Amino acid sequence: MELYFLGTGAGMPARERNVTSICLKLYEERGTMWMFDCGEGTQHQVLRSPLKLSRLEKIFITHLHGDHIYGLPGLLTSRSYQGGDTPLEIYGPPGVKKYIETVLSLSEAHLDYDLIISELDRELVFEDHQFRVTMAKLEHRIDSYGYRIEEKERPGKLLHEKLSEAGVPPGPLYAAIKSGNDVTLEDGTRIEAAEYTSPPIPGRTVVIMGDTRITEGSARFCSGADVVVHEATFAGDLDDLAHKYYHTTAKQAARMAMQQGVGVLILTHISSRYQKEGTEQLEQEAKSEFENSFIARDFWEYAIPRIIQKQ
Amino acid sequence: MELYFLGTGAGMPARERNVTSICLKLYEERGTMWMFDCGEGTQHQVLRSPLKLSRLEKIFITHLHGDHIYGLPGLLTSRSYQGGDTPLEIYGPPGVKKYIETVLSLSEAHLDYDLIISELDRELVFEDHQFRVTMAKLEHRIDSYGYRIEEKERPGKLLHEKLSEAGVPPGPLYAAIKSGNDVTLEDGTRIEAAEYTSPPIPGRTVVIMGDTRITEGSARFCSGADVVVHEATFAGDLDDLAHKYYHTTAKQAARMAMQQGVGVLILTHISSRYQKEGTEQLEQEAKSEFENSFIARDFWEYAIPRIIQKQ
Repeated sequence: MELYFLGTGAGMPARERNVTSICLKLYEERGTMWMFDCGEGTQHQVLRSPLKLSRLEKIFITHLHGDHIYGLPGLLTSRSYQGGDTPLEIYGPPGVKKYIETVLSLSEAHLDYDLIISELDRELVFEDHQFRVTMAKLEHRIDSYGYRIEEKERPGKLLHEKLSEAGVPPGPLYAAIKSGNDVTLEDGTRIEAAEYTSPPIPGRTVVIMGDTRITEGSARFCSGADVVVHEATFAGDLDDLAHKYYHTTAKQAARMAMQQGVGVLILTHISSRYQKEGTEQLEQEAKSEFENSFIARDFWEYAIPRIIQKQ
Repeated sequence: MELYFLGTGAGMPARERNVTSICLKLYEERGTMWMFDCGEGTQHQVLRSPLKLSRLEKIFITHLHGDHIYGLPGLLTSRSYQGGDTPLEIYGPPGVKKYIETVLSLSEAHLDYDLIISELDRELVFEDHQFRVTMAKLEHRIDSYGYRIEEKERPGKLLHEKLSEAGVPPGPLYAAIKSGNDVTLEDGTRIEAAEYTSPPIPGRTVVIMGDTRITEGSARFCSGADVVVHEATFAGDLDDLAHKYYHTTAKQAARMAMQQGVGVLILTHISSRYQKEGTEQLEQEAKSEFENSFIARDFWEYAIPRIIQKQ
């Protein structure tokens, strides 16, 4: 489970940062990857990365501003050219379906895979045996969403040697014990599942936020997450500008992360007004509020640890 | 008057060639530039070039396939961000207006300049005192256009010294002579304009073709042009594939250029199947038919000479 940052800029592409797109690599967990937003040139960034579009399983759109969606049509058609043939699901605010369908239809693009587009109207976005994804509405000039991805706890591993010593015969009993059920052997011996399995493997929680001001609700949505990816369009002294344009400063995001018991804060959506020195200052400002703050950069891969030492 | 190639690939972006976009720099002639097609990532290519979006005056779209138009919305909005405030006119096939308006509206993009979108239904696209642009319908899977840009002849320069020797007083007579009118002085001397001006400066003709098979009509449209920019999606041995997919081979384009008395042929829309060696072979194939053939590459600037030695 790794975050891969394809674009970490704001508004329009710059030489150093492309417009927004973030991948969540789930190669180990499910052999696929998910994408969050898809600004223009995202497929170009993929070309320069080790990622493969054929592995793309889901795209979550935070909002319909151009710097978050203008790369979608090209990415969808190139995935088809490159032999991607498994279904792809896109989630996003109302309007995303009309956007994609109008563009693909006018340009007579034909995809060799099933494209499912879901416009979101409820909190629960997706759930299966591995993951649960929920959505929260944020405070931006237009509808903007945050996504909270919760990996489910996995059962611990069977302690085979210990089971063998206790005389448990391999077979259905093993499966029962692995699932956490206590069992009784034919000779009446009671086997407590917890004693014969390693502790359950905890799931991780990642929150990826769209453009927003920080509100009580947006902060609560980040609460307790292992990793929060948050926009930081402005530096600490530009509170007024951030408020006016419905954005967040690096300092505000860091303060929120500290208060909400977040593990790691990754700041992205960095304005091109901040070059190298400006970005370092942005990071310092954030760290002064919350030590575990980092500024994302294009092509940065961040492996999400199983256990994060929270501050 | 220079051609500047921003994207010379076909279908989808590759590391070496972005999807199609060509600029015609008219800095000297009118202080502006025109663009032909705008595939995804064109604004990124502009960032890496000396071109300025604020100078962009007109965009001509050859057809609505994604690799020719998916960069439009981002380029239009970035032009506004970058302070472009002069009107911009877009010409293209029916559907181009719905495409642009739907995307800009759903993404709530606001431009700080007037955008005029003209869907073409006649041969004459644009004409003023300097240029005349006409369009021809080509043969592709969807509506595809070629554009012929004819620079008008400019009057020669006044030969000041000679006029002075002949006793012509500076003033309104000069203007009349420069415009090509013969005049009679007060003393009855007849002044033939042609003798007191350098020869007229001939205009140049550039043809930029959209994706197409070569047809009698498409060939005629290129006739006598100083420079033709033509697609060459396939190599010489792939006539069947080229025909099937409504494209052209390098050899076919070169043969046509030879037959039509073209000055220089520039081939573009090169498939990513042709790497360095393949491209050199493509150029050799073209040159074997027509010596003045060249393969375009991204970021190549070609200054159009006033007089081209035709073969």
